Amino acid sequence: MTICREAVHHKPKSNYAYAFDETTVHVRLRTKHGDVDRCRLLHGDKFEWPESTELTPMERVHSDAHYDYWQLAVEPDNRRLCYAFLLETADEALWYTEWGFESRAENELPTAGTDRSLHYFEYPFLNPADVHEPPEWVSDAIFYQIFPERFANGDRELDPESVEAWGGRPTRESFFGGDLQGIIDNLDYLEDLGITALYLNPIFESSSNHKYNTADYRRIDPHFGDEETLRELVDAAHDRDIRVMLDAVFNHCGRQFAPFQDVVENGADSAYADWFHVHEFPIEFEPRPNYDTFGFEAYMPKLNTGNPEVKEYLFDVATYWIEEVGIDGWRLDVADEVDHQFWRELRREVKAVKPGAYILGEIWHDSRPWLRGDQFDAVMNYPFTYAVYDFLTNESIDGTEFADKISRFLVRYPEQVNQVLFNLLDSHDTPRLLHRCDGDKRSLRLALLLLFTYRGTPCLYYGDEVGMTGGDDPDCRQPMVWDRSEQDRELRAFVAELIELRSSLPALRGGTLRFVDEECHGDRVVYRRIADDGDEITVAINRGPDPVDVSLPTDARDRELLFQVGDSDLVQGEDGQVTLSPTSGAVWR
Amino acid sequence: MTICREAVHHKPKSNYAYAFDETTVHVRLRTKHGDVDRCRLLHGDKFEWPESTELTPMERVHSDAHYDYWQLAVEPDNRRLCYAFLLETADEALWYTEWGFESRAENELPTAGTDRSLHYFEYPFLNPADVHEPPEWVSDAIFYQIFPERFANGDRELDPESVEAWGGRPTRESFFGGDLQGIIDNLDYLEDLGITALYLNPIFESSSNHKYNTADYRRIDPHFGDEETLRELVDAAHDRDIRVMLDAVFNHCGRQFAPFQDVVENGADSAYADWFHVHEFPIEFEPRPNYDTFGFEAYMPKLNTGNPEVKEYLFDVATYWIEEVGIDGWRLDVADEVDHQFWRELRREVKAVKPGAYILGEIWHDSRPWLRGDQFDAVMNYPFTYAVYDFLTNESIDGTEFADKISRFLVRYPEQVNQVLFNLLDSHDTPRLLHRCDGDKRSLRLALLLLFTYRGTPCLYYGDEVGMTGGDDPDCRQPMVWDRSEQDRELRAFVAELIELRSSLPALRGGTLRFVDEECHGDRVVYRRIADDGDEITVAINRGPDPVDVSLPTDARDRELLFQVGDSDLVQGEDGQVTLSPTSGAVWR
Repeated sequence: MTICREAVHHKPKSNYAYAFDETTVHVRLRTKHGDVDRCRLLHGDKFEWPESTELTPMERVHSDAHYDYWQLAVEPDNRRLCYAFLLETADEALWYTEWGFESRAENELPTAGTDRSLHYFEYPFLNPADVHEPPEWVSDAIFYQIFPERFANGDRELDPESVEAWGGRPTRESFFGGDLQGIIDNLDYLEDLGITALYLNPIFESSSNHKYNTADYRRIDPHFGDEETLRELVDAAHDRDIRVMLDAVFNHCGRQFAPFQDVVENGADSAYADWFHVHEFPIEFEPRPNYDTFGFEAYMPKLNTGNPEVKEYLFDVATYWIEEVGIDGWRLDVADEVDHQFWRELRREVKAVKPGAYILGEIWHDSRPWLRGDQFDAVMNYPFTYAVYDFLTNESIDGTEFADKISRFLVRYPEQVNQVLFNLLDSHDTPRLLHRCDGDKRSLRLALLLLFTYRGTPCLYYGDEVGMTGGDDPDCRQPMVWDRSEQDRELRAFVAELIELRSSLPALRGGTLRFVDEECHGDRVVYRRIADDGDEITVAINRGPDPVDVSLPTDARDRELLFQVGDSDLVQGEDGQVTLSPTSGAVWR
Repeated sequence: MTICREAVHHKPKSNYAYAFDETTVHVRLRTKHGDVDRCRLLHGDKFEWPESTELTPMERVHSDAHYDYWQLAVEPDNRRLCYAFLLETADEALWYTEWGFESRAENELPTAGTDRSLHYFEYPFLNPADVHEPPEWVSDAIFYQIFPERFANGDRELDPESVEAWGGRPTRESFFGGDLQGIIDNLDYLEDLGITALYLNPIFESSSNHKYNTADYRRIDPHFGDEETLRELVDAAHDRDIRVMLDAVFNHCGRQFAPFQDVVENGADSAYADWFHVHEFPIEFEPRPNYDTFGFEAYMPKLNTGNPEVKEYLFDVATYWIEEVGIDGWRLDVADEVDHQFWRELRREVKAVKPGAYILGEIWHDSRPWLRGDQFDAVMNYPFTYAVYDFLTNESIDGTEFADKISRFLVRYPEQVNQVLFNLLDSHDTPRLLHRCDGDKRSLRLALLLLFTYRGTPCLYYGDEVGMTGGDDPDCRQPMVWDRSEQDRELRAFVAELIELRSSLPALRGGTLRFVDEECHGDRVVYRRIADDGDEITVAINRGPDPVDVSLPTDARDRELLFQVGDSDLVQGEDGQVTLSPTSGAVWR
């Protein structure tokens, strides 16, 4: 069998070849699954070619149904890298360069019909300005998402007129009086749980309960508090080493946003006429708005982020709340519908005032175009969310397919991005985790085990830890359950333990994740987290209704059982065989 | 046979899905060669999904040995695009989404285990700020590259002391006295040839003859003239509708550059210490420079383009010569070794003062990371150069492989980039065309026919049109032959005719290029240029020593013979059969 050329893929300056840091380039290669026995990278300096070259084996780091993925970290002497791949099977030695394939042996470099090294791949120069360095604190963080109107009412004087009794079932229009003081009052609760970072849904002045239709980006919504309350919250959080990330709704504003109101009144004569994408003046709202909006929502006019005044206005907003109040990051709403140039400039502005600020895009899809180092640090990792549900609750994929899917995700982005991806199982935009689990708390615990042992930073949606449930908006936005008798205290303790587990193990917060391929099938998956220092953690999960025997990797045998979900006896035989009871999981060191 | 999943490729916001203009998205798909009979795109608005969807056939626009490439232009109603591909063979209907493959019929949309449209591909929003619009004039231009020290001596008073007699054989250190006045003096010659744009190698103060080691970016080299001479040149060129592009050497400077001299003198205490990448102070030149350089050349210190002062200095240079003298573009030397952030900012600065300025990167490789609309308009198309030589002169590839290679190039970049790629057959950095052709002027003519009928903008290297030859530097940089008795006037007339041919036919300057696959093999290739208005040009080439029979496409039969290389009789039979004599080519309309 000849090597399948059609499956082979590499591309410089992409997730297949990127600067990991100022001295290291990561090189990846894709081949057809099971097709190639060995992969080596010929690499050197093009100005000393081929004298400077070395041929170094690549590691097969991931696989899925279609492909094997190979990886190697290279530290070029002069920050320049010129390279080619040598793919080998028992029958064939195949060079792969930018110009294509050449069947030749190891000691015969590809020539590609030219007298120069032009046909090799190149990473031309490792410039520090292009290195993507997300903030280090993020991979160590435990995030907690708060929908402020529904978390806690700390100041009854700020309540909206139409406030309803805490604990009622919300409609899309309900107000329950949650506010910033309520968050301040409960920081002890969050600290006690192990939380180290908060993500707050929007808090700027807005007529709705969700506040995604901003009226004034420079003013805290009066029902939530004021700038001083936010400052108190941020300071109190920082005193507890808890960071605070706010929600930046820059794709669109609200209908009450003063510049938009001006356009409604003055039409084409408004000084703000170009701040929006108006198809025709005057503004009309029915039957469909005659200006661009989020979705087809007339109350959310899309901002023209290509307009220099709009940019200046929003960049000022972005830096104002960092400089004046000290927030630690921005979550960018509907990030994929805003132009890339805007985000590039925003990054520069934000990082200039706070290099460690976390810039997180809301994108539900493959987000490579935003994760090249020039725009976001990370995105909300919904692909992970859905993979977990497809495996654990929908059961639309089995253990093999789950491992395949996750493996694909792990080669999609640079390693430093994997390290800070924002992993979540639910949010204000989805049904709650417990709802997804059909109320089955054992499934829920398995899902949380996956979340807290995965690469990136985990985020808990407020109340999940005490057993709150609810379908899509508005049900997933119910008021936080504070009555201890209604809280699932056992679940809360479980979550705190999981957080403690993660926090105590560098292998769960850094390093890599590898599936134990032969143990990923049917109802089970087994994977390892490997720290940079070599420390290894093994995680095994059985989603199914029957016990399954799992064979731990040789080097994980006779190791310490650290954590358990479900009531497995977990007798471990000499051969490393372990029986997992139905819907259970375990973690060994 | 099931469809080969491993070969299928698509990626949003890449050359596989990009904004062609403010209302159009181009969607491309790759499948295994010959594998799929039909490809259709399901597309619509995600906020009206699936009601808004349509299923539209894609066109198979190119093929190579491994893949077929499909393309479709879509104009989404609301600038948002959500989509999936339906691949069909006689045996199988296969949906391809961002989440993978699902075998289902046309009327059963993929479900991917989720209740939302999340698994579809998305082009989230067509923002004008992200649309890549290269200057329109470029695709109509005929470029002529001048190495100023060797083109013409127009002012003997400026000659360097060591000047040699015009016409001598250069060493790497020779000076012949070429200058800007020499170019001004010969604008009639260039206009007469049909040239509409000049690319000048560097002209700023520098100790070498090539001037790639700049001493002062704000001063014209005194051996070339001064700012006033350049202004005269640009004005005189503009009077003839000839544009002028200069060479921007921003990756590195020369050893005499004042800030570098300051670092040499003052070491770490220099105010310019961070303008370079110095590994250790004091500066040392031997045995290897202890600072980053171009290659290992001590006389070309690499600039730290991440330093804000360096950026400001170079951006000022870039805009100064546009605003003060009116140049029309910059060719960026060693563009791939400079950081992307620098180029993004340079683009903004340059386009702010002259939106129609052409920004051209010197990159010899696949240049997708620089051609996303945020950095360059185009690159020097050396991959095309080498494909031509591999087919025409090295004969390391045959007609099939040549068509394969070129087809791969044509799907590598967005169509609007293909339209302005800077195509060349030689330059100051390569042996001359005639040298590559081993002195065979019939081969040379065929190469020029390829150049002038290819997509993008052609560039002629000074003197090629009169039969100059020479190997690598310094031989390719000989003084221009002005003595008419030494000029090949017939060749010059041929080049003028080719230019006239291209200039008179919109199909050669715009539209697409498609190979007639069944006629591309062995020594021959046949391709068509198709204008946006449907006008078609057919080009046939026989590189070999024997006559070949070529079958013209049905709709090209009985058409007008426009141009011919070689002495074929070109009797055309009723079946569209044409006999091409050895080393010949022809163009029909």
